[in-house]
Amino acid sequence: MNAQTLNFWLNNLAVIAFAITAVLAVNEKDDIDIFAVIVLGSITAVGGGTLRDLIVGVPVFWLPDAVDIRLAVLASVCVFLARPFFRNTKVYVLMLYLDAFGAALFAIQGTIKIWGLGLTIPILPLVFGVMSAIGGGIIRDVLASRKTLLMSSELYIIPVLLGCISMVAVLKFFPEHVLIGEIICSAQIFLFRACAIHWKWHVPSFLILRSKI
Amino acid sequence: MNAQTLNFWLNNLAVIAFAITAVLAVNEKDDIDIFAVIVLGSITAVGGGTLRDLIVGVPVFWLPDAVDIRLAVLASVCVFLARPFFRNTKVYVLMLYLDAFGAALFAIQGTIKIWGLGLTIPILPLVFGVMSAIGGGIIRDVLASRKTLLMSSELYIIPVLLGCISMVAVLKFFPEHVLIGEIICSAQIFLFRACAIHWKWHVPSFLILRSKI
Amino acid sequence: MNAQTLNFWLNNLAVIAFAITAVLAVNEKDDIDIFAVIVLGSITAVGGGTLRDLIVGVPVFWLPDAVDIRLAVLASVCVFLARPFFRNTKVYVLMLYLDAFGAALFAIQGTIKIWGLGLTIPILPLVFGVMSAIGGGIIRDVLASRKTLLMSSELYIIPVLLGCISMVAVLKFFPEHVLIGEIICSAQIFLFRACAIHWKWHVPSFLILRSKI
Repeated sequence: MNAQTLNFWLNNLAVIAFAITAVLAVNEKDDIDIFAVIVLGSITAVGGGTLRDLIVGVPVFWLPDAVDIRLAVLASVCVFLARPFFRNTKVYVLMLYLDAFGAALFAIQGTIKIWGLGLTIPILPLVFGVMSAIGGGIIRDVLASRKTLLMSSELYIIPVLLGCISMVAVLKFFPEHVLIGEIICSAQIFLFRACAIHWKWHVPSFLILRSKI
Repeated sequence: MNAQTLNFWLNNLAVIAFAITAVLAVNEKDDIDIFAVIVLGSITAVGGGTLRDLIVGVPVFWLPDAVDIRLAVLASVCVFLARPFFRNTKVYVLMLYLDAFGAALFAIQGTIKIWGLGLTIPILPLVFGVMSAIGGGIIRDVLASRKTLLMSSELYIIPVLLGCISMVAVLKFFPEHVLIGEIICSAQIFLFRACAIHWKWHVPSFLILRSKI
Repeated sequence: MNAQTLNFWLNNLAVIAFAITAVLAVNEKDDIDIFAVIVLGSITAVGGGTLRDLIVGVPVFWLPDAVDIRLAVLASVCVFLARPFFRNTKVYVLMLYLDAFGAALFAIQGTIKIWGLGLTIPILPLVFGVMSAIGGGIIRDVLASRKTLLMSSELYIIPVLLGCISMVAVLKFFPEHVLIGEIICSAQIFLFRACAIHWKWHVPSFLILRSKI
């Protein structure tokens, strides 16, 4: 299995993981239909990368062959069909890990894509890496009238950002080890985020802005 | 009257219809001024098509001659001037039909445009057809802090999607009858949606995701 | 100091002013972390111009050298570090003036940029001038789950729009005095808005749409 095939499958897995987690956006009070599930699932899966591609001015990644969007729609339909399954609390927690997995892959792949476009001023791969990971979920939350990730003290952006920084370091100093760096940095994000989910870590209070300080 | 002239006028009508319905977004509690009415009206009218054109990477449709944006602004100003008129419940219901009319035209025109760009994997004309129809309204609702269409059980996306599917079938199997197909598929969406408004049809419950199932 | 250098520094000042005002979006109820401050600050600073550039189809202004985004991130970090300072009511009022300053510069610079692209149908520089000024703040408010500017009767869009109209007049009738026009029109917006802040002017009631009229 070469790097391109690996990336293809990892990307597909990340799309499916994110599309599935869209069901997390369903509030207890709302009745949403299968088409809303598909729209929210697809936006969660491809929204961050779409925004990134639009801003850097390259063709949107899911357009030519429509693989990602078809996967996202299919995964959303499966989520809808299996909906009784998602009442289970254990499944809900599993979703958080799936989301961490998707975020880890999207962040690192986004970072690498931006670097490959020659946008190598370090802040740019970081901005777009984080955007690839959290953009879709934020758009989903806005459309679902939920509070976005930004307004919580969830430990989410920090693991993503640290992983992107590691990846930029690999791209800059060890450009011959990008593939192994990709795997390690994705794992770094996933494991840090997984610890945060498992032990309910939050952003440390000295990094929090409170109106009453 | 040839096909191009017909399309020009139908498109103008759809823009006006959508701009007018922006007044639907005004909540009883909010005081909004004429400029907010213009912004919301214009976004409702051109937002979905703008998003579609950005994502597929073609010039945004209202830029070269600014006809659509001028119409949208003009219609919004008229709505503002005629505001006492909109207190009437009958007018409110008429607005729902106007909105259905705009959605029907935008959906089918979006589908045809995407097909014409060579994006003929069936899911793409469907995604962008639906986006053309509902995108503007969703952005308007987000800006107006209202619950979006997606979080309701309104029977709206289903008529739009079925019409787009019909149109894709026409484009694929009867490419010589696009004009008549355009009219029939637009009518299909409008009539289905109009029935849903008139008889208060909602999405059938087996297509609804409830947190308590 | 020539026109280009002046514009460079005025633009940097506007970016910093807008990034700082992002702290205005923090609601008393929310705990947001430093990374959310950075994301909200950056979006407030570059969001409106990014949207403008995407829609007109030119490269996004902060991409090539990343100066604006670095300034926005830096300003956001400073805001976070100086957070006790922002509890002061006087500082809060100062922020409103800073915001007026940023809006004035962005509106006029946006108007000039669009005119320079040959989009000289008067409505286009006006649409994009207003978008440059208010776009970032509106996206910030949406992400922070706050009511946007559009749903208030704040006297904000009127000063911006009038300034853009003046600038379009200068560009059309006195194209040889663009630099002096830029300064005067920016000052016009800032002063009108500053008066509105100081004397608590609101949009006059005949321009307000009320559901109960």
